[in-house]
Amino acid sequence: MRKLEDCVFCNVENLDGEYIVYRDEDVIAFLDIYPVSRGHTLVAPRKHYETIFEVPDNVLCKLIVVTKRVADAVRKTLKADGVRIVQNNGRAAGQVIFHLHFHVIPFYEGVHSGRRRLEEQEGLELQRILSEALNYEA
Amino acid sequence: MRKLEDCVFCNVENLDGEYIVYRDEDVIAFLDIYPVSRGHTLVAPRKHYETIFEVPDNVLCKLIVVTKRVADAVRKTLKADGVRIVQNNGRAAGQVIFHLHFHVIPFYEGVHSGRRRLEEQEGLELQRILSEALNYEA
Repeated sequence: MRKLEDCVFCNVENLDGEYIVYRDEDVIAFLDIYPVSRGHTLVAPRKHYETIFEVPDNVLCKLIVVTKRVADAVRKTLKADGVRIVQNNGRAAGQVIFHLHFHVIPFYEGVHSGRRRLEEQEGLELQRILSEALNYEA
Repeated sequence: MRKLEDCVFCNVENLDGEYIVYRDEDVIAFLDIYPVSRGHTLVAPRKHYETIFEVPDNVLCKLIVVTKRVADAVRKTLKADGVRIVQNNGRAAGQVIFHLHFHVIPFYEGVHSGRRRLEEQEGLELQRILSEALNYEA
């Protein structure tokens, strides 16, 4: 499996302070540690691809199916009123980490939270709720 | 095939002033007529599903693979510096048309264009460029 030593998403499984909510052979999902809203989660391939343009179609399919499952878990368990899925390719489009990932961003009516650092207590609580909904043993 | 009479995306193939750039058995892609940037394109299932939560996984896979192809065509032919893919579920998340669709939004460095009505000349030009890149006979 192609991993880059200095890529934070290649190494997310080994880092402290990361909240993984789902993992299978090809795909990993974890909380964004700078969430724009409660439950903001990232879905990425475990192998390194920079953007959507490099990933093979079969892995892309697995990614979007897990993204849908994560979005559904967020919607149901956190009672989100809406969910936006975003995937940025290239710095000009807002990509910051150059390892392909889909954002799952919940929206709650009347709540406009800015981006902030995820606190440990909330991270652990969300990890417990979402991993349970996704049948993943965190 | 489930179509809704009053759904604009169920009927996009039959409307005047729509710029279709790709179509196959399951998926259709067409220019957003209120683009946020040059080449802003939408990718939707031909059958009606309201959000990502209703679409079967096999159709979702076809959608994301076509979305990737459209994004690649936009990037290469229009020389976009980046491409953002967005998919909104629910009014709270910014969904306006309640027929599942992916936005393909090109970014051009130094260009910040607001949303505007697509003009016919530009629509026809973009349709020609993108449908050719996608091997679709418009």
